[in-house]
Amino acid sequence: MTTPRKILCLCQQYDLREMFGDGFKAHPDLELVLPDEVTDPTQIKYVLAFRPLPDAFDPLRDLRMVMSVGAGVDGLLLHPGLPSDVPLIRMVNPEQAEMMAGFAAWHVVGHHRGMLDFPAFQRDRLWKAGHCIDMPSSFPVTVLGFGNMGRAIGRALAAMGYPVRAWAGRARVEDGIEVLAGEDGLRQVLAEAKAVVGVLPLTDATRGFFNFRTFAMMRPDALLVQLGRGGHLIEDDLIAALDTGQLARAALDVFQTEPLPPESPLWTHPKVMVTPHIASDSSGSAVAAAVYASITSHESGRRPEGLVDRDRGY
Amino acid sequence: MTTPRKILCLCQQYDLREMFGDGFKAHPDLELVLPDEVTDPTQIKYVLAFRPLPDAFDPLRDLRMVMSVGAGVDGLLLHPGLPSDVPLIRMVNPEQAEMMAGFAAWHVVGHHRGMLDFPAFQRDRLWKAGHCIDMPSSFPVTVLGFGNMGRAIGRALAAMGYPVRAWAGRARVEDGIEVLAGEDGLRQVLAEAKAVVGVLPLTDATRGFFNFRTFAMMRPDALLVQLGRGGHLIEDDLIAALDTGQLARAALDVFQTEPLPPESPLWTHPKVMVTPHIASDSSGSAVAAAVYASITSHESGRRPEGLVDRDRGY
Repeated sequence: MTTPRKILCLCQQYDLREMFGDGFKAHPDLELVLPDEVTDPTQIKYVLAFRPLPDAFDPLRDLRMVMSVGAGVDGLLLHPGLPSDVPLIRMVNPEQAEMMAGFAAWHVVGHHRGMLDFPAFQRDRLWKAGHCIDMPSSFPVTVLGFGNMGRAIGRALAAMGYPVRAWAGRARVEDGIEVLAGEDGLRQVLAEAKAVVGVLPLTDATRGFFNFRTFAMMRPDALLVQLGRGGHLIEDDLIAALDTGQLARAALDVFQTEPLPPESPLWTHPKVMVTPHIASDSSGSAVAAAVYASITSHESGRRPEGLVDRDRGY
Repeated sequence: MTTPRKILCLCQQYDLREMFGDGFKAHPDLELVLPDEVTDPTQIKYVLAFRPLPDAFDPLRDLRMVMSVGAGVDGLLLHPGLPSDVPLIRMVNPEQAEMMAGFAAWHVVGHHRGMLDFPAFQRDRLWKAGHCIDMPSSFPVTVLGFGNMGRAIGRALAAMGYPVRAWAGRARVEDGIEVLAGEDGLRQVLAEAKAVVGVLPLTDATRGFFNFRTFAMMRPDALLVQLGRGGHLIEDDLIAALDTGQLARAALDVFQTEPLPPESPLWTHPKVMVTPHIASDSSGSAVAAAVYASITSHESGRRPEGLVDRDRGY
């Protein structure tokens, strides 16, 4: 690139340039602009978007690419003004995936090793040497969704000795991890797992994925770690599954409504750990690197990584 | 192997055959025996040992190899009856190392992401979206000791995006991780780390390693995760370092005296998490696999993995 490419930031909540601008300093050929700085909107070719206003895309008549700040594009795909003929790119960001892997691993190891029991033992000065000393090899973990995030989670858990299998749209072996597909594959991986980590994309096919039917396929001693989207989870079904002992625990980072409303029974459920959608995040440098990669791919006629298949929904 | 090799279990506390025998079923050419089953002790060539009685080795006149159940041999090396001319093997066990890696990662991620704060936020129905959202790339971790355990810990943390450097007896780059050595190296890796994970062997050179001098090299926001040996830590110096803000937190799995005595101030220190020497363990199958590998190496004249250098102390 020689002349700077203008990238219009569209977000109704945050100033994306303030959030991520630091990372763009390493890319003088990329220039983040805000809507009120644009004199001729037909000159804008690139958009960086996170929950844009309903009419935000309307004046952009020569748009070439929309880049999502998030890895999930379910919200953007429902945006009524998103041009249907413009390539949409979801964020593919190694660091975001690794951060997610650490968060998932904390929950998996914590459940496997009973780590949250130790503070109470400590209060009682109890030396419980035999507590949760099972080998990781006897604690199978299933990762639902095996894109950028799922692979990073699988790799990290395998490095800690956990037998990992995954479930996704297409059966394969990747990074040494067996990925199953289809209804039979789902039954298999849910039946064996002592921890189930959810990082599915939210699509018409996965909306309400975690429900009484899938909970019935899981082990009664299993932990659910749900890091995908709030729309995957039927919260009432989860509470019923936990209360009837169909499932042991749940760690939830995403919810149907965020922030989680104060009246939600999830806040006080003794078998639920609530975190406020913080499993992972993107740094400015990672966003800038992804934007740079997408624009150079686009301009040289290559397929940008993270190009969304709108029929598939991710 | 054709005729079964007898392996004498020497332990004053446990029946090692009961603990690990299951794993030996896959090795019909290995036979675990107990002292009272031995009619002619001069026929015993191999010993599997964990805290043996002081006179346990005395009648074994034709001993060829002593295999430690543990990865640390500091206790065995102090045993007055251990024959000085017989190869001593410490346990090298990939699963034990991976289990240790998961345990270390739980503490590192927990400190980095403030995970133990969330239960209190949840009790107050507080949606703290900005809590501890720093990237792993801004959270350097130092691993002290870079054998089997240290490498597994380093690999797992790197898979979660943490910048990892290590410190050990010999400077090198291994598994993509830079290993520093010497006093200058120690200063460097301790000064940068937001978490320090200790898996050093206990030798004359590392006894009392964690003391007022090394704590003074660390960051005031750092976590110490001590998984090596109780003898590494001057417990009073740690309490002073935590009380004066020289160090933020400590997670201790090993202690000068185990079980940790009820009167120890570590039990009640608000910045200390105590676990009862459970970071890692060995399964019967892993012990059997290591014993099998050691004996076949020995019998074919190869150097067994884990052969202890008695001058070095590990």
